[in-house]
Amino acid sequence: MKILITGGAGFLGQRLARRLLERGMLDGKPVTELVLLDIARPHDERLLNDPRVRAETGDISDPAVLRRHLDTDTEAVFHLAAIVSGQAEADFDLGMKINLDASRALLEVCRAAGHRPRVVFTSSVAVYGGALPDIVQDDTALNPQSSYGTQKAIAELLLCDYARRGFVDGRVLRLPTISVRPGQPNAAASSFASGIIREPLNGERSVCPVSGDTRLWLLSPKRAVEALIAGCEIERGKLGDRPVINLPGLSVSVDEMIAALREVAGEDAVARIDFQRDERIEKIVGSWPGAWDTARAEALGLEGDAAFADIIRAHLADS
Amino acid sequence: MKILITGGAGFLGQRLARRLLERGMLDGKPVTELVLLDIARPHDERLLNDPRVRAETGDISDPAVLRRHLDTDTEAVFHLAAIVSGQAEADFDLGMKINLDASRALLEVCRAAGHRPRVVFTSSVAVYGGALPDIVQDDTALNPQSSYGTQKAIAELLLCDYARRGFVDGRVLRLPTISVRPGQPNAAASSFASGIIREPLNGERSVCPVSGDTRLWLLSPKRAVEALIAGCEIERGKLGDRPVINLPGLSVSVDEMIAALREVAGEDAVARIDFQRDERIEKIVGSWPGAWDTARAEALGLEGDAAFADIIRAHLADS
Repeated sequence: MKILITGGAGFLGQRLARRLLERGMLDGKPVTELVLLDIARPHDERLLNDPRVRAETGDISDPAVLRRHLDTDTEAVFHLAAIVSGQAEADFDLGMKINLDASRALLEVCRAAGHRPRVVFTSSVAVYGGALPDIVQDDTALNPQSSYGTQKAIAELLLCDYARRGFVDGRVLRLPTISVRPGQPNAAASSFASGIIREPLNGERSVCPVSGDTRLWLLSPKRAVEALIAGCEIERGKLGDRPVINLPGLSVSVDEMIAALREVAGEDAVARIDFQRDERIEKIVGSWPGAWDTARAEALGLEGDAAFADIIRAHLADS
Repeated sequence: MKILITGGAGFLGQRLARRLLERGMLDGKPVTELVLLDIARPHDERLLNDPRVRAETGDISDPAVLRRHLDTDTEAVFHLAAIVSGQAEADFDLGMKINLDASRALLEVCRAAGHRPRVVFTSSVAVYGGALPDIVQDDTALNPQSSYGTQKAIAELLLCDYARRGFVDGRVLRLPTISVRPGQPNAAASSFASGIIREPLNGERSVCPVSGDTRLWLLSPKRAVEALIAGCEIERGKLGDRPVINLPGLSVSVDEMIAALREVAGEDAVARIDFQRDERIEKIVGSWPGAWDTARAEALGLEGDAAFADIIRAHLADS
């Protein structure tokens, strides 16, 4: 089975690739070729040295690039490439180009290939916004309050229609905010949700730009990767007329995250957090749901994390 | 005030134009120029002879055409041009081009002009679908089951983000199915909702492709035009973070529509309806809500019709 991962050099893309290679199988078939398409090459030598891996660079909003790496042999596509929330808010045109146009171009290339490949889109808490119930339901309306959320919501709608028409075997997985991400801070409005844990554990200072009672809906990188694979393997018939799944997460306030950091790493780590509110970030993150109903996802076999302290411990074990 | 109506040669566009000219004012300012942009010229001589009217033809998915007719003097835009549901389902690419690309091009031209014009998008019952409550609420999720509904839902999201960012002063009016439309049947899946009344009144036979208990959410042409104008005139501040309004309508079953036809025009008219179910149409129309909550629209001063028999009588008076 040939698999394409867009954003394959990103943190989640590389992690998904490693897991797919380790499993060796997807949907009951051996993984024979894994194309990692991104603007840059992955850093991970283990990945690059695997004979099944082909690392390719290119602009995914260019249909010619997509056509070069997605053909009738490509049985599964994980579309992870995206411009993150903070950057899409700062650079509207770039967000539209990658989050909307490239997603549409990908669907069009699949449609033209004509073999109805399995396509997994990742979406986000950011598709929600405005007045929200405490626990968002599967039938709660999308009302994104950021350009990133708007573009993700549009990509969802496109995928659903392409799936309904039989152009792709598509599914959308709405990811909670991923924490703890390794590496450097990024331009996501939610970057702090990893930074306030990761930097203090590294002995570095970190800024928390939101109030302690801000509630986040979190998923660990490990569970996110497992959900991507499980989501890809769900039989089409089980998705009904709505191939969009809100993935399970953990509803945690920033104060609770900090308490978990204290539990795992002590007061010294917590003392490295500086509270400095940033209205721009508070506005975006505050528009996102702090929890959503996970019954459907769980019935489909998708799982979240048990406790945030465990996520921190897993992050330490990975580092 | 210079006003642009896309789809200005269509039935609703011409009717809106006549009403705007008759009022002479929009949002407290005199209507000085009314540009009717469409692929064809309007038929209505009264319109064409009004010195305020400029009828222009062109492809609205071409940004150059839009730029030619939308400039910094254009204070209000009514975007009515669309590929109807049945046609967008039959010709996917044409639907995407007009319902999505042209809507986005229009927003981009407004953004480039930089004067934040008032922009009214029309949307539809077709943005809903799947399992729905008996009465759709403002916060019921969109789950369109047609390409037309998908494209309208995407255009809504785009308008909302362009409005949120201050590129346009935008609002979306979700229209019920318009009945009774004058003229000929069209390729809308809902075409029968006018046909089963209009043709029998003209002494012609008409096919009803859905079962009698199919529930429709209807609005008369007269009320639709009033709602477009009132929707355009709503102060931005009253829309909050959600400039999408579900317009009031009348929830009527096909059987009730036929009973109203009997009341107005007698059994002879009713006898001209042939019942011949069409699965393709039943599937699309059956996915639409039969009613939605109208509290917000009414609070904003928008009104629906009182009774379907009155709509039929108004149609007869207009003809």
